[in-house]
Amino acid sequence: MQGMVMKTEIKEILEAVRDGKVSVDDALLKIKLQPYEDIDFAKVDLHRAVRQGVPEVVYGAGKTAGQIARIMDVMIGNGQEQILITRIDSDCADELNKVHKVTYSRWARVAYYGKKAEIHGVGKILVATGGTSDIPVAEEAAVTAEYFGNEVVRVYDVGVAGLHRLLDHLEDIMSASVIIAVAGMEGALASVIGGLADCPVIAVPTSVGYGAAFEGLTALLSMLNSCAAGVSVVNIDNGFGAGYLAGMINRR
Amino acid sequence: MQGMVMKTEIKEILEAVRDGKVSVDDALLKIKLQPYEDIDFAKVDLHRAVRQGVPEVVYGAGKTAGQIARIMDVMIGNGQEQILITRIDSDCADELNKVHKVTYSRWARVAYYGKKAEIHGVGKILVATGGTSDIPVAEEAAVTAEYFGNEVVRVYDVGVAGLHRLLDHLEDIMSASVIIAVAGMEGALASVIGGLADCPVIAVPTSVGYGAAFEGLTALLSMLNSCAAGVSVVNIDNGFGAGYLAGMINRR
Amino acid sequence: MQGMVMKTEIKEILEAVRDGKVSVDDALLKIKLQPYEDIDFAKVDLHRAVRQGVPEVVYGAGKTAGQIARIMDVMIGNGQEQILITRIDSDCADELNKVHKVTYSRWARVAYYGKKAEIHGVGKILVATGGTSDIPVAEEAAVTAEYFGNEVVRVYDVGVAGLHRLLDHLEDIMSASVIIAVAGMEGALASVIGGLADCPVIAVPTSVGYGAAFEGLTALLSMLNSCAAGVSVVNIDNGFGAGYLAGMINRR
Amino acid sequence: MQGMVMKTEIKEILEAVRDGKVSVDDALLKIKLQPYEDIDFAKVDLHRAVRQGVPEVVYGAGKTAGQIARIMDVMIGNGQEQILITRIDSDCADELNKVHKVTYSRWARVAYYGKKAEIHGVGKILVATGGTSDIPVAEEAAVTAEYFGNEVVRVYDVGVAGLHRLLDHLEDIMSASVIIAVAGMEGALASVIGGLADCPVIAVPTSVGYGAAFEGLTALLSMLNSCAAGVSVVNIDNGFGAGYLAGMINRR
Amino acid sequence: MQGMVMKTEIKEILEAVRDGKVSVDDALLKIKLQPYEDIDFAKVDLHRAVRQGVPEVVYGAGKTAGQIARIMDVMIGNGQEQILITRIDSDCADELNKVHKVTYSRWARVAYYGKKAEIHGVGKILVATGGTSDIPVAEEAAVTAEYFGNEVVRVYDVGVAGLHRLLDHLEDIMSASVIIAVAGMEGALASVIGGLADCPVIAVPTSVGYGAAFEGLTALLSMLNSCAAGVSVVNIDNGFGAGYLAGMINRR
Amino acid sequence: MQGMVMKTEIKEILEAVRDGKVSVDDALLKIKLQPYEDIDFAKVDLHRAVRQGVPEVVYGAGKTAGQIARIMDVMIGNGQEQILITRIDSDCADELNKVHKVTYSRWARVAYYGKKAEIHGVGKILVATGGTSDIPVAEEAAVTAEYFGNEVVRVYDVGVAGLHRLLDHLEDIMSASVIIAVAGMEGALASVIGGLADCPVIAVPTSVGYGAAFEGLTALLSMLNSCAAGVSVVNIDNGFGAGYLAGMINRR
Amino acid sequence: MQGMVMKTEIKEILEAVRDGKVSVDDALLKIKLQPYEDIDFAKVDLHRAVRQGVPEVVYGAGKTAGQIARIMDVMIGNGQEQILITRIDSDCADELNKVHKVTYSRWARVAYYGKKAEIHGVGKILVATGGTSDIPVAEEAAVTAEYFGNEVVRVYDVGVAGLHRLLDHLEDIMSASVIIAVAGMEGALASVIGGLADCPVIAVPTSVGYGAAFEGLTALLSMLNSCAAGVSVVNIDNGFGAGYLAGMINRR
Amino acid sequence: MQGMVMKTEIKEILEAVRDGKVSVDDALLKIKLQPYEDIDFAKVDLHRAVRQGVPEVVYGAGKTAGQIARIMDVMIGNGQEQILITRIDSDCADELNKVHKVTYSRWARVAYYGKKAEIHGVGKILVATGGTSDIPVAEEAAVTAEYFGNEVVRVYDVGVAGLHRLLDHLEDIMSASVIIAVAGMEGALASVIGGLADCPVIAVPTSVGYGAAFEGLTALLSMLNSCAAGVSVVNIDNGFGAGYLAGMINRR
Repeated sequence: MQGMVMKTEIKEILEAVRDGKVSVDDALLKIKLQPYEDIDFAKVDLHRAVRQGVPEVVYGAGKTAGQIARIMDVMIGNGQEQILITRIDSDCADELNKVHKVTYSRWARVAYYGKKAEIHGVGKILVATGGTSDIPVAEEAAVTAEYFGNEVVRVYDVGVAGLHRLLDHLEDIMSASVIIAVAGMEGALASVIGGLADCPVIAVPTSVGYGAAFEGLTALLSMLNSCAAGVSVVNIDNGFGAGYLAGMINRR
Repeated sequence: MQGMVMKTEIKEILEAVRDGKVSVDDALLKIKLQPYEDIDFAKVDLHRAVRQGVPEVVYGAGKTAGQIARIMDVMIGNGQEQILITRIDSDCADELNKVHKVTYSRWARVAYYGKKAEIHGVGKILVATGGTSDIPVAEEAAVTAEYFGNEVVRVYDVGVAGLHRLLDHLEDIMSASVIIAVAGMEGALASVIGGLADCPVIAVPTSVGYGAAFEGLTALLSMLNSCAAGVSVVNIDNGFGAGYLAGMINRR
Repeated sequence: MQGMVMKTEIKEILEAVRDGKVSVDDALLKIKLQPYEDIDFAKVDLHRAVRQGVPEVVYGAGKTAGQIARIMDVMIGNGQEQILITRIDSDCADELNKVHKVTYSRWARVAYYGKKAEIHGVGKILVATGGTSDIPVAEEAAVTAEYFGNEVVRVYDVGVAGLHRLLDHLEDIMSASVIIAVAGMEGALASVIGGLADCPVIAVPTSVGYGAAFEGLTALLSMLNSCAAGVSVVNIDNGFGAGYLAGMINRR
Repeated sequence: MQGMVMKTEIKEILEAVRDGKVSVDDALLKIKLQPYEDIDFAKVDLHRAVRQGVPEVVYGAGKTAGQIARIMDVMIGNGQEQILITRIDSDCADELNKVHKVTYSRWARVAYYGKKAEIHGVGKILVATGGTSDIPVAEEAAVTAEYFGNEVVRVYDVGVAGLHRLLDHLEDIMSASVIIAVAGMEGALASVIGGLADCPVIAVPTSVGYGAAFEGLTALLSMLNSCAAGVSVVNIDNGFGAGYLAGMINRR
Repeated sequence: MQGMVMKTEIKEILEAVRDGKVSVDDALLKIKLQPYEDIDFAKVDLHRAVRQGVPEVVYGAGKTAGQIARIMDVMIGNGQEQILITRIDSDCADELNKVHKVTYSRWARVAYYGKKAEIHGVGKILVATGGTSDIPVAEEAAVTAEYFGNEVVRVYDVGVAGLHRLLDHLEDIMSASVIIAVAGMEGALASVIGGLADCPVIAVPTSVGYGAAFEGLTALLSMLNSCAAGVSVVNIDNGFGAGYLAGMINRR
Repeated sequence: MQGMVMKTEIKEILEAVRDGKVSVDDALLKIKLQPYEDIDFAKVDLHRAVRQGVPEVVYGAGKTAGQIARIMDVMIGNGQEQILITRIDSDCADELNKVHKVTYSRWARVAYYGKKAEIHGVGKILVATGGTSDIPVAEEAAVTAEYFGNEVVRVYDVGVAGLHRLLDHLEDIMSASVIIAVAGMEGALASVIGGLADCPVIAVPTSVGYGAAFEGLTALLSMLNSCAAGVSVVNIDNGFGAGYLAGMINRR
Repeated sequence: MQGMVMKTEIKEILEAVRDGKVSVDDALLKIKLQPYEDIDFAKVDLHRAVRQGVPEVVYGAGKTAGQIARIMDVMIGNGQEQILITRIDSDCADELNKVHKVTYSRWARVAYYGKKAEIHGVGKILVATGGTSDIPVAEEAAVTAEYFGNEVVRVYDVGVAGLHRLLDHLEDIMSASVIIAVAGMEGALASVIGGLADCPVIAVPTSVGYGAAFEGLTALLSMLNSCAAGVSVVNIDNGFGAGYLAGMINRR
Repeated sequence: MQGMVMKTEIKEILEAVRDGKVSVDDALLKIKLQPYEDIDFAKVDLHRAVRQGVPEVVYGAGKTAGQIARIMDVMIGNGQEQILITRIDSDCADELNKVHKVTYSRWARVAYYGKKAEIHGVGKILVATGGTSDIPVAEEAAVTAEYFGNEVVRVYDVGVAGLHRLLDHLEDIMSASVIIAVAGMEGALASVIGGLADCPVIAVPTSVGYGAAFEGLTALLSMLNSCAAGVSVVNIDNGFGAGYLAGMINRR
C-alpha cells in the first residue's frame, strides 16, 4: 500500500536513496506506484493478486455483466489467475462466459474464473442450515470456502424443531474445524450447534421467514444473544463473508 | 354482566315480567345489578367470586399495600375465599399480612390469600428455564399454576447451550400436559422444547440478558418465529399470564 | 428419533441384546434407523406418519410444485396417508393435482391429500376475525384445525368498532373450547374476546392495515399486551400455527 | 402577534398613518410592541392574557419553583388572572404557594392560580381509563378540561377485558360531547369507545404496562390504528394536551 | 344494537311486554333484530342508514368492484341513500358505475353514491398540505368532509420551508373551525399551524418522503410531539379519518 | 415575503403612505404582492429568481414531465434563467427537452435548464464515495454543487476497507474547502475523512447494502455518531441537499 | 502524522537523505516521531497544539477530575495554551481548578483553560432554541463557538408554536453567517429557520420531551427530513459538535 | 451426555452388555450418569472440568457472592482447578476471596481461581479500542484470552478519527493471529482494522456513546455491515465472548 508503506519498506527505500541506488524521483515514484487501477466506475485492487497469490473477489450485485467483465480484464491483465464473483444471476454469468470462461454455481449465485485453490485448510468446514430455504445462502458460503481451498461438509435442513436430524450429525459437528450455521426465523440453530461444538461457530442469519422474522432481523438478534460461547455473527444473508472468514480461521 | 345480558337471561326476565312475577322496575334493576364494586381508585370485579368459584387475581404492581388491602376487603366482604396477588415485594406482603393473612413466595413475588385450589388439572405442567436468572419469572408462572389447582414440575437452568441438561429431562418433557418455556437472551429454549414435546408450549420471553437482548425483545421475536408448531407466546416476563393460561389448558 | 432414543427404548434394546434376541449390529442399526429421508433439498420427516398416525405438514412457500410432489412421494411411499400443504397458490395446487390428488382451499391457500381426520376434538374451535381482509389467515387456521379433526365455528368481520356484531355471537364465544382471534390494525379483538371468554384464546396478528400498522407489528404488540388473561400470540399471519395449536389444546 | 400582524390590522394602522392620527414612529412602535416578555431563561407569552381572557399555561417539568414563580410574576404583572401549571410535584407546589396562592391536585400533578373558568362548554367531556394506573394521566386531562371551563365525567378502570364495566356506562359514553380515552398496555379502550360513541374521541396512550408495552409505544400504535372512525391520538401520557383539545372541541 | 340495547330501550320493551302490547317472542325478536346483514365475506352495518340518516362508508382497499357492488346492493336495499367508498382506483369506479351510479374523485381516490349531504357544519374546515405530493391524502380528507356536509377550504403546498406561502393564508387559518394539516417528511406543518390557529388541528402524516422519512413514521412521531396545544394525530395517510373527525367536530 | 415583511420595509411603506406617495390600498396591495404563483397543483416560488439571481430548483420525484414543464413555464415566464431539476429519469428528461432545452446527467438523475453558474466558490468541494454503488448519489451532489458555481473534485470507490486508496488522495482531502462523504453499509468513510480533513464534512448515508444495512439506516446512525469533529449529516441518499449545502459553505 | 506522512514531506526527507544532511536512521526516526503521547488510559494528541495553534478539546464525560488533569498536564507540558473540556459537572471543575485554573460555564457544562481565541470568524453564529429546556445544549454549542473565536448571538425559547417570537428575530436570522438550531420534541425549528435563512443551518436535536419524543430520536429524524435546503444534522444533544462545525464554517 | 451419547459409545456399551461385562442396569446407569450437578438455583456443568482440562466459566452478573461461592464449591469439589468469573464487582470479589482465593482484575471486572493456563496459542491476539471508555470491555476480552492461554497485545485509544495513532501500530495489526476490535459510537474501527489485517477480526460493539449511539446498537449495526471481509461480530459489550472465541481461533 502506497499511502502507508510500512516502515521496513521506507527504510529500504531510504537506504537505496542514500546509497545512490535509487534517485529521489524514482523513490518517490516507487512509493506512489499504485497497487490499484482506476477505471471509470471503480478502483480495482491488484495487490492481492500481486502479493498474496490468493483469489480476488468481485461483488456482483448492482453491476452489469459488462462492468464485471471490464474489472476482470484489468485483473487478468495484471496477472490475476483466480477471480470469484458473488451475487450474480445465471443470465449475467452466461453473458460473462462469452468474454471470460467462468464456472457458475446456480444455487450459490456465485461464479469463478480460474481453478479453485488447492485444499490447504487444516480441517473441515461444516455448513449447516435450519431449513431448505436457507440453502442459497449456505451454498454461497460453501462455494466460497471451497474456492479458497477448504474441504466443506454440508448438513442441510437440520433445524432445531427436529432435533434428531441435527443430532444425527453429531460426529460431523464435533469433528469440524469451523462451523457455519445458517438459519432464518428464530435462528436457534447457532446456539444449539454452539453448545455442541468445540470450534468457532460463524452464525449467518437469513432473511427466510415472514411476519416477525423482519427480514432476518430476528435471527440476527437471536444469534448475537447466543448463550453458547464461541459464536460470532455476520450480516444477514452474508454467505460470502462467512465462507471467507471460515477459510481464514481454517488456514491458521 | 348487565350490559350484555345473554339472550336466555333476557328471555327469562321478559317472561317473568309478562307473567307478573317481576315488576318492570325490578326487572330493570336486576339487569342493572352490578357485578363489580366501585371503590375510589378501582372497580373491583366480583363475578368470578360469585359465579365461578375460582380465585380472584390482583395485579399488585403500582399499588400500595393499603390499596391492595382495600381491594381485598371488598372481595372478601363479597364472599371471595381465594385471592392471588402478583408483583408485590416482601415489604408490601408483610404490610398486607397485618390485615389479611397471606402466604408469600419471595422468588415469585406472589402472595395468596386463602387455600390453594385442589389439584384438578388433568396432567402436569412443566415449567422450564434457560438459565438461573429466568427463575423469578418461572416461579411466578409455577406458583400461579399451582394456585389454580395444577401439579407443576420445575426444570430450571436447561438452556440449549448445554443440550444434555435439557435432554436429561426428556421424559418430563414428553409426558407433560402443557409446557411453559421461560428464557431470555436468544430464547431458543422454546423452539427446542417445541420440537421435542407433543403438547402446547407457552413461551415466556424474559428481560434477562444485555446489549442486543434489548430487555427481552430478542427473546420475544425469536419465540414468535419458532420453527416448531404448537408454540405460542405471552408478554415479556409475564409469568402470571403463562401460568394462568397453562392452567386453563390443563383443565380441558 | 435416533439421536435421542428415549431411555425406555434404550433399556428395551439393551435387554434384547443381553438376551441374545438382537445382535449388536442390529441393535445399532435399529438405533440408527433414520426416521427421515434425505432428498436433494430436504430431510423429509417420517416419524409422525409412522408413529402417531397424524397428518404430516408441508410448508409450501418457496417450494415449486415439483419439489412438493417429490416430498409427497417420499411420504406416501412410507405409508403416510394424510398430508397438509400450506401457503400454496392455486396454480401450484393444480400442478400438484396432476401427480397426487389434493383438495384445495382457495381462501386459505391450503391443500390436503387424503381424508381429513375424523372429528375427535372435545369441543368447538371458534375462529373470529376483525375484518374481511383477515379472512385468508383465519381460513388457514380454520382449515388446518378441521384437517386435524376439530369442529370449527367461523365468526368473521366482528371487529370491536362494531361491538354489537361481536356481542351477537356471545353464546358462540362463551361455549367455545378454544378461540382463535385473527385481527390486523390495532388487534383489539383479542383483548375483547379474551375478556368475554373463559377458554384459551390464540391471537393471530395479521398484516392487514396501512401506515402505523407496520405490516402487523402493531397488532402483534397490542395482542402481547392484552389486558385479558388466557391470551397467547403466534407470529403475524400464522394461521397454520394457530390452527394446529388450537387442535392440540382441543384434543386434551 | 407582532411579527405577523394580520392584514386588517396593517390596513387600520396604514389608514391611521395616512389620516395623521398616528405618526410613522408610533405606528412602527405599535407593530413592534411585543406580546411577550423576555426573562433570563424564557420568553413569557402574554398575548393570551391580554387578548383572549383565557388562562395561561406553564409546563412545569424541568423548571424550579423559583423559575415558575418568576414566570408567574411576569404574567400576573401583566394582568393575567388565571394560570395553570402542569407536571409539578407537591413539594414544588408547596414552594410556589409561598409566593403565589395556588390550588394543587396531587393525582393530576397540576396546580392552578386564580379561579377556574366558568363552565361554558356546551356538553360534557367524558374521561375514561383502562386501568387504575392510568388515572394520573386521566386526572391531568380532567383537571385541565375543568380549568378551561368544561364539565367532566370520570369513568375509570373500565378496560376492555371487563367489558361489562364499560358497557355499564353506555349512557355516559353516548351522551358525551367529547371523550378522552386513556389507556396503556394494548390501548384497545380507544377503539371500543370509538365504536360506541358518536362524538370525537381523543386517545391518550399511557406508559403503563411492562415488557412489550414499550413505555406506551404499543398503546400509541394501537390507538393510531383504531378501526373506529372519529378517533385521534396525542402523545404518550399527554393528559394536558387531551384536556385542552377536548375543551377546544367542546367550546364550538 | 341487539347485544347492548340501551337501558331506555330495554325499559320501553319491558313496559310493552307488561302491558301486553308486545308478546315475549316479539320482544325477543325485536331485540334480536339485527342491524347488520351477513353476506358471504362481510357483515354490512345498516344501523347508520336506518337511525342516523348519515352516509354509510365502505373501505374499498382490498375489495373487488363486485364485492363493493354487493355491499352497496344490501345497503341500498335497506334504504341507504348515500354511500362513500374510499381507496378505490378509477378502474374499480368505472366497473362500479355499471351497477350503481357513483361520482368519482380521481385525486382523492374516493367515490360516492347519492347526493352529498347539505352543508350543515357550523364553520369551515381548512385542509392544508406541506407539499404537492401530499395532495391525494388531503383530497381524501376534503372530499370526505364535504360529503358529510362541511364547507372545505383547500390551502395546498404551504410547507414551512416557505413560510411566506403559509402566512399568506393567515386569515383562512385564523377563521377556520377545524384544520386538517397534511404533511410528510418532517411534518412540521402541524406544529406551525397549531401555533397560529385557535381551533382543533388534526394532523395527518403522509408517507411522502424518502430515506429517514421511513414511510411516514418520522412525520407521525413529529406530529405527536407537536409543541403546539390543540393538535391530535391520525394514522399515516388516513385522509378519510381526518375528514370524518373534522366533520364530527364541525357539527358540534 | 408578504406575510412577514421585514421591519425596514414596513417603515418605508409607512413613510410613503404618510407622505402621500402611496395610497393605503396600493400600500396594502404592495404588501400583498405575492412572490409565488399558484398553479393547479403547486405554488411556484419566484422570489429567488427575482431577488437573488440564483438558480431555482424543482424536485422531480413524483411529478410528470408535463407538470415539471408547466412549473418551468411559470418560472421562465417570470425571468428565471437557470433551473435545476433533480430526481428525474431519462425518459422524463427527453420529454422535457421537447418543451424546454435541458442538459441531462444520467448518473446523477439531474437535469438543468440554462447555463451553470460561473465558478464563484472560494475553494474546491471534494465528493468521495465508499463504493461504486454510491456514485449516483455522489453525482447528484457533485452536479448540484457544480451547477451552483463550485469546482468539484471526485474521488470515488475509496472505502475504508482499502485504506490505501483513500490515503492516496490525502492531498485532495487536505486541501478541500468542503468534503461530501457518500457511503452506504457501515458509513465509516465519514469518520475516517473527518479525522483527516480540517474542513467541514457533509456525510451522506446511502441506501447501498443489504441485510442489517436497513436501507441506509445503519450508515445514517453511524455517521451521526462520528467520532470526528466537523461532521454533519443529511438524509439518506440526499445528494442534492449535500451539494447545495456544500456550495453554501464554499460561498462564505 | 507518522503513518501517513504527506508526499511532500517524504520528498523533503528523501532529498535530505540523498544530500547526506540526514542519516537513514534519523530520517526514519523523524518519520516515526509520534505526535501524541501515550499515557496509561489515553493517547493524548499533541499535533493540533504544535501545528495549528488552535485549542485542544477534552471530552470530559466518564473521566475523573484526576484523569482530565493528567491529560492537561501532558498537553500543557507540550506547549498547549488553550484547552476546552466538555461535559463536566461543577464538582469536577472545582476539583480541576485546584490543579489548573479553568473557567467554568455551569449551563454549558464546559470548562476552558487559557484564554478564549480572539474573534476571527467572519460573521456571526446564531444559536437558537425551541424551548428553555434546550438551553444547556445550546450553551455547549455557544461557548464552544466563542472559545474557538466566533461572535455568537443567542436567541432562546423561540419554538415554532409561538411563531411571532421567532419572526421577531428575523433580522438576526437573515444576517447570520451560520445558524445552530437546537430543539427537542418535534424539532420543527430547524425547518422553519432553514426556510428563512440563507446560510448553513446546523440542526441539533435534543433529548428534551417525553413519550414519543423517544429521547431525541423524533427530533433527529424530523431534522434529517427537513424540507428546507441547507440544513444538516449532528448527534442528539451534541452541542459541542455543532459549535465546532459552525466555527469551522464561519472561518472560511 | 446421556441424551445424545455418540454412536461409538453406544456400540461399546452394547458390546459390553452382550459380552456380559456390564449388566443392563449398569449400562443404563452409565448412560444416565450426569455430567452436571443440580444445586438449588443452578445446574453446574462439570464435563469441561472432567473431560477437557480447560477452565470453567461462571457468569457473575445477577449472582450473589454466596451463590458464586457455592457453584465454585461444587466445581472444586469435582476436581476443577481453574475457574473464571466474569462481570463481578470488587465488593463481590472481596467477599469471594474469603472463601476461595481469587485474583481480581478491576478494569475487566473479572476474577479467576487457580492459575492461568500456560500460553499455548500459536500467535498473538491483538485487542484494540476506539477510545478510553471502551477499555473495560477490552480488558474483559484480554483477561479472558490470557486466562485461556493466549498472549495478548493491547492497543487502546486508536479510534479512526486519529488515524495516525492506529497506523502507528500497523506492524502489530499485520502480525496478529486474531484481532479483537472494541468500539462504541460509530464502530468504524472494525472496518478499518479489517481492511488492514489479514487475520480474523472479532468486532465488539460497546455501549459507549450517547444520543444516536443507542446503547451500542449503532456500533453493532455498523460492524455487521463492515465492508471488510474477515470481520464477525459478538453482542454489545461482550468482551468475554470475544476473548473466548479469539482463544479458540488462536488454538487451531
